[in-house]
Amino acid sequence: MDALTPLGMVSEFPSENQDHGTALAGAADRSTDETCKDYFVERDGMKFAGTHLLVDLWGAKNLTDPAHIDAALREGALASGATILHGHFHHFSPNGGVSGVLVLAESHISIHTWPERDFAAIDIFMCGACNPHDALPALQRAFGAERVELDEQRRGRVY
Amino acid sequence: MDALTPLGMVSEFPSENQDHGTALAGAADRSTDETCKDYFVERDGMKFAGTHLLVDLWGAKNLTDPAHIDAALREGALASGATILHGHFHHFSPNGGVSGVLVLAESHISIHTWPERDFAAIDIFMCGACNPHDALPALQRAFGAERVELDEQRRGRVY
Repeated sequence: MDALTPLGMVSEFPSENQDHGTALAGAADRSTDETCKDYFVERDGMKFAGTHLLVDLWGAKNLTDPAHIDAALREGALASGATILHGHFHHFSPNGGVSGVLVLAESHISIHTWPERDFAAIDIFMCGACNPHDALPALQRAFGAERVELDEQRRGRVY
Repeated sequence: MDALTPLGMVSEFPSENQDHGTALAGAADRSTDETCKDYFVERDGMKFAGTHLLVDLWGAKNLTDPAHIDAALREGALASGATILHGHFHHFSPNGGVSGVLVLAESHISIHTWPERDFAAIDIFMCGACNPHDALPALQRAFGAERVELDEQRRGRVY
């Protein structure tokens, strides 16, 4: 907490590590969440924890508006069938870059933008049945990248 | 915001996308932050936005306590010389896995744990002069992994 104080965070809970088990009880997605966290997925003869997409956007637009970026990532997460638990988007200065993240029941989506280079680095990590590729159309609509570079990693490969 | 409501988030700012420029004015690290966001780094004859480490921990311990995990990631971030802007850690159920993230002035660190497999997937993305490898000793002290698998990606490579 001490490291955060001088930076004047707006959140009253800059470091949130409470147990959400009780808060989530009764939520429609809870059983899905817990199943997702309990089991690795099997696909193509491979057993692993989840798929991690690294997405580099070049010639991208709309990289300075945190509300727009927030909405784009949410739309992508929901298109993948993910459950959004938390979001935080930081604007470095007016017309400057944005760093943000959505914490998902199925892992996370993050973004960091360099508007002066029309560049954004996104990563989409999803475990279980969710497919991070399904988030890409929403991101393309939001940022209109001229070029997209994708790298896919399967995290926690057992075999 | 609507998607968050049924899950009973504890944060009063579950989606924070305010402009932090004013709040950060006068903070000692601000000039560093802005410099970091303005320029790509050059190293080994390569120009790129930042280094993204994917870290898979196997045979890891202490994967169910969000406060411990929060502290470990903070120690790693500070060891890398990073500036912590925001932290959020979600505990899926008592003794269950944890998903969490630190948003940094230099990008982010995330973690997702599968305690039933003694497995954790971490990613450390840092731009500018910060070296994500410097975070690894703190993570090893905190989780005591028997095996660590590293993958390093240079994001936003220009040449």
